[in-house]
Amino acid sequence: MTRIAIGVDLGGTNLRVAVVDDSGKLLEAITTETAVARGRESVVDEMCAAVERLSERHGRAENPIAGIGIGVPGIIDMDRGMVRESPNLPGWHDFPVRDAIEKRLRTHVLLENDANAAAFGEQWMGAGKDSGFDGLCMITLGTGVGGGLVLGGKVHHGMTGMAAELGHTTVYADGHRCKCGNRGCLEEYASATAVQRMAVEAVSAGIAPELQKAMAANSELTAHQIYQLAQRGDLPSRVIYDKLGTALGIALAAWINALNLPMYVIGGGVSGAWDAFAPAMMKEIKSRSFVYRATNSDPDTRKKTIVARAVLGGDAGLLGAARLAMLAAH
Amino acid sequence: MTRIAIGVDLGGTNLRVAVVDDSGKLLEAITTETAVARGRESVVDEMCAAVERLSERHGRAENPIAGIGIGVPGIIDMDRGMVRESPNLPGWHDFPVRDAIEKRLRTHVLLENDANAAAFGEQWMGAGKDSGFDGLCMITLGTGVGGGLVLGGKVHHGMTGMAAELGHTTVYADGHRCKCGNRGCLEEYASATAVQRMAVEAVSAGIAPELQKAMAANSELTAHQIYQLAQRGDLPSRVIYDKLGTALGIALAAWINALNLPMYVIGGGVSGAWDAFAPAMMKEIKSRSFVYRATNSDPDTRKKTIVARAVLGGDAGLLGAARLAMLAAH
Repeated sequence: MTRIAIGVDLGGTNLRVAVVDDSGKLLEAITTETAVARGRESVVDEMCAAVERLSERHGRAENPIAGIGIGVPGIIDMDRGMVRESPNLPGWHDFPVRDAIEKRLRTHVLLENDANAAAFGEQWMGAGKDSGFDGLCMITLGTGVGGGLVLGGKVHHGMTGMAAELGHTTVYADGHRCKCGNRGCLEEYASATAVQRMAVEAVSAGIAPELQKAMAANSELTAHQIYQLAQRGDLPSRVIYDKLGTALGIALAAWINALNLPMYVIGGGVSGAWDAFAPAMMKEIKSRSFVYRATNSDPDTRKKTIVARAVLGGDAGLLGAARLAMLAAH
Repeated sequence: MTRIAIGVDLGGTNLRVAVVDDSGKLLEAITTETAVARGRESVVDEMCAAVERLSERHGRAENPIAGIGIGVPGIIDMDRGMVRESPNLPGWHDFPVRDAIEKRLRTHVLLENDANAAAFGEQWMGAGKDSGFDGLCMITLGTGVGGGLVLGGKVHHGMTGMAAELGHTTVYADGHRCKCGNRGCLEEYASATAVQRMAVEAVSAGIAPELQKAMAANSELTAHQIYQLAQRGDLPSRVIYDKLGTALGIALAAWINALNLPMYVIGGGVSGAWDAFAPAMMKEIKSRSFVYRATNSDPDTRKKTIVARAVLGGDAGLLGAARLAMLAAH
């Protein structure tokens, strides 16, 4: 019998709820605006309503929903089922989300950091599917840079659930100040925010006329628009994505040397600019990681280090969260 | 009944063989010169003779030696029980060490990278003893910088046994060229070799009269002698250990953010200079790792990130190797 579970992606702007079966098929998804501003009660109401609707349509008496997995952008207190810290979910701190939803829906609920859930989803149904690998490192390039580690087939949470803060790896010891308190974090060079900042810097330096023009027309120029300029051959825009790839490659080389995992997957919105940053990224990895070179010159093709683009897009988190709930209920 | 196993530390200059019981007591150890130059047959002969001597003295018919764990400085092919790469053991490449010794001694044999064995030993009987933790990251500061990761109570080998090459974490993207091909590796700032190089650089720059004097008397000035100068207040020598601590702290901050382990242990010969480099190291960790700050401001004292000096010295590898053999035989 096919088992089914529900995955929730509790983003800062969107709430997505989906029912997933154990073959990894996304049977149905509901997307609503989270309306975080209306407060957590309202978000929980919306989430529960969506879960109930999907349960009614897909759950059977002999095959009920196995559980609900919720991917949350922030640091989770796994033991207590609470959000420990989440800049995008103000007011959720110290609110017992898991127990509140379990009580209401009478189903097993599991909270997971959204980047961890996405890593688990990519491992299960995405880039890591059919690989036979039980390890994967995922880097999510979005507004910030997140990370998820799957080690030995399990999400690596670390001692307090804060593991895989890969965006806060120091890439340039004396680099740009990060809001985490460090200098030169990967996030300061490889996030959408960083791309925008580097564009502003290039314009201020007077070396980027095309970017200047675009910014004059649109002061909120996005990382994607800067990528489009790069694609059209604008050199300063290309240099920005080159810098992004270089920073990402420096960090990846260190993780490859430290973890020797079979697969490193780059996801998140900014990963759409793959062709603009991947060459610089691969150049750094090859020159900086002897573990990469050793594995990839090995005649055993099953033991190559793979660095690849994520394939599931926004569904990775939903699938991963649902899968984690399925396994926990087992 | 107490179980016993044999641990071997196959160093580049010394061969140490010890019998260890399952309470972590080192019952007897034999140290000989490895005489690597005489070839691997001679080393294996010596090792087997020592193992046989210890087996005779400590093994009983009703309680024989459970197995032999051998810590090797290099990259191990775990599947085939061979040394894949070891600069200190020329001629061992593609020699089936495990099978050769198993055949000869008719006991289960396990090969392990020496830094991994040391990490496992520290976890079992050293800094991690009684901690209740199942995760530990060990950094060994010696001629080079090695590393070992214990995750979920097990040595993390990675896909090809090359994991935990922590000495080759990029600390300064444009830094000193490393023999691994990278630039700015931790090893180039935190090994005994690096300390010596930094001393030569300081003398060449004409800013280190005391070091210059010491080098004139002894061209092979060791990292330990430079530490002694630092202890006696020589500023240029203190600056060298400060640089070491800074580089180590930069790398540790990134690992703490990525792994969120309960314990990070610094061992190896250079760790004897702890008081000279630890202040700079801790300063970097505190300013660069928000995960460190978050855990260490948590009122739950069981969940603090601990950065500590290794306690077992040269015995860590012996104990770890023996313990791994015990567990594998179980």
